[in-house]
Amino acid sequence: MLQLKKKYCKFCGKDAIVYIGYANLGLCREHFIRFYENRIRKMLEKHRISGSLMVCVSGGKDSMSLLTAIKRISEDTDLDVYAFHINLGIPNYSDECESIVKGYAKQLLVPTIVSNLKKDIGFSLPEIISVSRKPPCAACGIVRRWIINKTAYELGFDFVATGHNIDDASTFFLKALMTQDYYSILRGQWEFLEPKKNYRLVGRIRPQFYLSERENMLYAQLNNIPIVDKPCPYSLRATIHKYKKAWSTLLEINPVSQINLTKTLMKLRKMMTIEEPMLYQCKNCGYPTENPNGICSFCRLISRVNKTLHNNS
Amino acid sequence: MLQLKKKYCKFCGKDAIVYIGYANLGLCREHFIRFYENRIRKMLEKHRISGSLMVCVSGGKDSMSLLTAIKRISEDTDLDVYAFHINLGIPNYSDECESIVKGYAKQLLVPTIVSNLKKDIGFSLPEIISVSRKPPCAACGIVRRWIINKTAYELGFDFVATGHNIDDASTFFLKALMTQDYYSILRGQWEFLEPKKNYRLVGRIRPQFYLSERENMLYAQLNNIPIVDKPCPYSLRATIHKYKKAWSTLLEINPVSQINLTKTLMKLRKMMTIEEPMLYQCKNCGYPTENPNGICSFCRLISRVNKTLHNNS
Repeated sequence: MLQLKKKYCKFCGKDAIVYIGYANLGLCREHFIRFYENRIRKMLEKHRISGSLMVCVSGGKDSMSLLTAIKRISEDTDLDVYAFHINLGIPNYSDECESIVKGYAKQLLVPTIVSNLKKDIGFSLPEIISVSRKPPCAACGIVRRWIINKTAYELGFDFVATGHNIDDASTFFLKALMTQDYYSILRGQWEFLEPKKNYRLVGRIRPQFYLSERENMLYAQLNNIPIVDKPCPYSLRATIHKYKKAWSTLLEINPVSQINLTKTLMKLRKMMTIEEPMLYQCKNCGYPTENPNGICSFCRLISRVNKTLHNNS
Repeated sequence: MLQLKKKYCKFCGKDAIVYIGYANLGLCREHFIRFYENRIRKMLEKHRISGSLMVCVSGGKDSMSLLTAIKRISEDTDLDVYAFHINLGIPNYSDECESIVKGYAKQLLVPTIVSNLKKDIGFSLPEIISVSRKPPCAACGIVRRWIINKTAYELGFDFVATGHNIDDASTFFLKALMTQDYYSILRGQWEFLEPKKNYRLVGRIRPQFYLSERENMLYAQLNNIPIVDKPCPYSLRATIHKYKKAWSTLLEINPVSQINLTKTLMKLRKMMTIEEPMLYQCKNCGYPTENPNGICSFCRLISRVNKTLHNNS
């Protein structure tokens, strides 16, 4: 996994179990866990996250590690942690995810909120995808963002935390650069977004924004965190994975390249004179949208699904 | 070399000898040569290059192919082509380069201008590098740019053409992004720069800006163009080569990725509010500099070399 280029732990001199390339740091088991949790703690402190926090947990290594770290951090802070899971209704996949998340959250003594797509909005993800003209991951993203925000807003959370990592952010930018996708570059990536209560928009934080998938996986392994170890069947088709794999070549040249690319594009974006997109309230659901016509992308998607599957307009 | 994914030439149906990934195009020998020369012709036409043109020729595949193509284009246009070569004084390298360039230009009936670094400025490149604190390629770039501009200006050329290709431009950007090198990104890359006669600055064009090294090499091979087939001994240490190699991974994912990255960054740069750097005339040599102190980087470099090697201030 993580290449071992430093033999000894920087902090205690014990045998290192991991080499963190971007920091040129060898770490033993104990100090890696401390290093990892400190990174997350600092991100929460930087953005002054306190009180009730809803952690979105899919069951994968990133979000399960995030839940674990935040739960531990909450023990000596005033954080009040809740797990939130969405059962997407994918056969041979979603029920297992729900069961692993619920079981582990119970073990951590973290209260869990579960949304079941089929029960709560009337359609499973496979049904939505069968009708949507968007790529599966794009449709799923629209649905998940809407449900996460609505649930957190209705339950009175100021912030939700998600398990996005530096592989996600840097690959988003890499793909956008390699495909002349200006829209994505200008839209950008972020570690933190303020809540906008008058638009029913809950604040969002990505505490693992500068942590890699490999660090999240190692943290999960070292802490015996159960994870869903098979990928979502829809994600296999996504082209983004091809770009994610290119990082092994680029990280070998420069182990800081993912962090550098992400920071560079975030800084370049700040140097551009771009107006922030206007927010409107969706005329249908009341949640925020950038669509000036007043119908959010979730409601447009569900309306198409409704028309096609129920054959009623 | 170029992967063969289309079996037949798009234009005549003959067996293809090459597949151009970014254009999804199979081409036979004859139509590849025509395609290649048309790309260069169009770039010259786009920027209205006519009259006397000084083509900088190192002896490598890029500049030797450029000279050949421009000479052929000149036969039915009013272009008047001259070759310009710099003998850098690198042992076991530079004399061979000079001899190959001179021999080939004679065969093409192109008049050749040669500058010999040791004779013309008093120091060979190895001498300059032994004293300079800059990386070899950076010091060499400063010297070459100054000599090219001075020679072209004194001989009355409006434009010089150089053999920069899409691998150069895209790797420049890739490295800058992966190292948070904002200066290079803001400085950018360009296919054409206007002359600024009042600053003694000759116009510059890179007719192969969107052509790849592999296309230049194939053109050289198909036309039996002699080339210097060993790399400059100093270039072997340059880190830029590591990034250049990463393109094989990225081009396999998306054959247009080099062109896309370059175009994207050139467009983003236009969206930023950046003041063009001021130009000054060097108090020493009279050629342009961005240094407000009034001494250009070439004169500063040579002054250090002079002081150290001749031990006179």
